[in-house]
Amino acid sequence: MEGLMNTRVMVQVGFIVQDIEKTKRKFAEFFGVEVPETLNGTEGPAKFHITQSTYKGKQNPEINAKLAFFDVGGAMAIELIEPNEVPSLWRDWLNEHGEGIQHIAFVVDSIEQTIPRCKAFGMEVLQTGNFAAGDGRYAYMDATKDLKTIIELLERWQ
Amino acid sequence: MEGLMNTRVMVQVGFIVQDIEKTKRKFAEFFGVEVPETLNGTEGPAKFHITQSTYKGKQNPEINAKLAFFDVGGAMAIELIEPNEVPSLWRDWLNEHGEGIQHIAFVVDSIEQTIPRCKAFGMEVLQTGNFAAGDGRYAYMDATKDLKTIIELLERWQ
Repeated sequence: MEGLMNTRVMVQVGFIVQDIEKTKRKFAEFFGVEVPETLNGTEGPAKFHITQSTYKGKQNPEINAKLAFFDVGGAMAIELIEPNEVPSLWRDWLNEHGEGIQHIAFVVDSIEQTIPRCKAFGMEVLQTGNFAAGDGRYAYMDATKDLKTIIELLERWQ
Repeated sequence: MEGLMNTRVMVQVGFIVQDIEKTKRKFAEFFGVEVPETLNGTEGPAKFHITQSTYKGKQNPEINAKLAFFDVGGAMAIELIEPNEVPSLWRDWLNEHGEGIQHIAFVVDSIEQTIPRCKAFGMEVLQTGNFAAGDGRYAYMDATKDLKTIIELLERWQ
C-alpha cells in the first residue's frame, strides 16, 4: 500500500503559544535541559527564517513567528510557535482556540507532489511558505475532518 | 539538570475521536499501512485492558475506551482513543473540546515518584488507572497552564 506521503515518521508536534519565552523555560525545566534559543524568523540560523508565506491564498511577507525546539527522542521535536500579530494560520488559530497543540509534521520528498494527493484525500491547503535561502519549505494542510488535526508537510533541501 | 521525569522521549500523541473505526481507516489510508486492530479495553491483548481507573478522585471500573495505534517512527505512536459513555477525562474532553489531539505521553520508571514532582511543578492529577494483569499503569496530569497540554505518564512493568 502506498500512503499519501513517502514517510510515516513524525518529526514535530507543534504548539501555538502566547509567550514563547515563558513556555520554553517551563518545558526546559520539565525536561531538565538547557533553555533553547528562540529563533525569531529573521535572526538566528537562516534555515529557520520564514519567508514568502501565503495564507488564505494571499502572500504576505509580514507573516512570521518565533520558534523554539525541544528534542524528544528519535526524529521527534516539540516545536513552540509564538505568532506575530499579522493574520496567519498561527495567529488566527491562537485567537480562536487559545494555546495548545495545533499540528503534527512530516518530512516529505516533494511538497509539490504531496499536496495534490492530500487534496484528493479531502484536505485543503491552509498556509505555505519558504525557509530562507533555499533551505526548504512548508505547507499546512487541513486534515481536521478525517485525521482530526492539521498536518504540516516539510520539505528540506539541505 | 534533572527533569521531572527520567526521560524526554515522547512515546505517544493521543487523539480523542468520536468513531475509532472510521478514523483509524483514514489514518491507515493516509500512511499506507494495514488498518490496525481496535483494542476495546476488555478484549484483545490483556496489556491494553484498562482497569481500576480513577477520575476526579473517584474509582469507576466502568471507565473504558477503544484504542488503536499507528507506529510513526522511533518510539513514537499515534494513539486513537474512543471513550465509552461513562464520565472520564476522555469522555468529558470530547464533550467539551470535540475531536483532536489531547495529550502527549512519556514512559517513566515510577509514576509514584513522578507525580509528586509534577504536582510541585504545578500540575494536577486528572485520571489514573491500571493496565490489566500487572502490565503497567497510567496517570494523566494537567499541564495546560505551563506546558499547554495534558501529559500522560506511563509505567510499564513488562
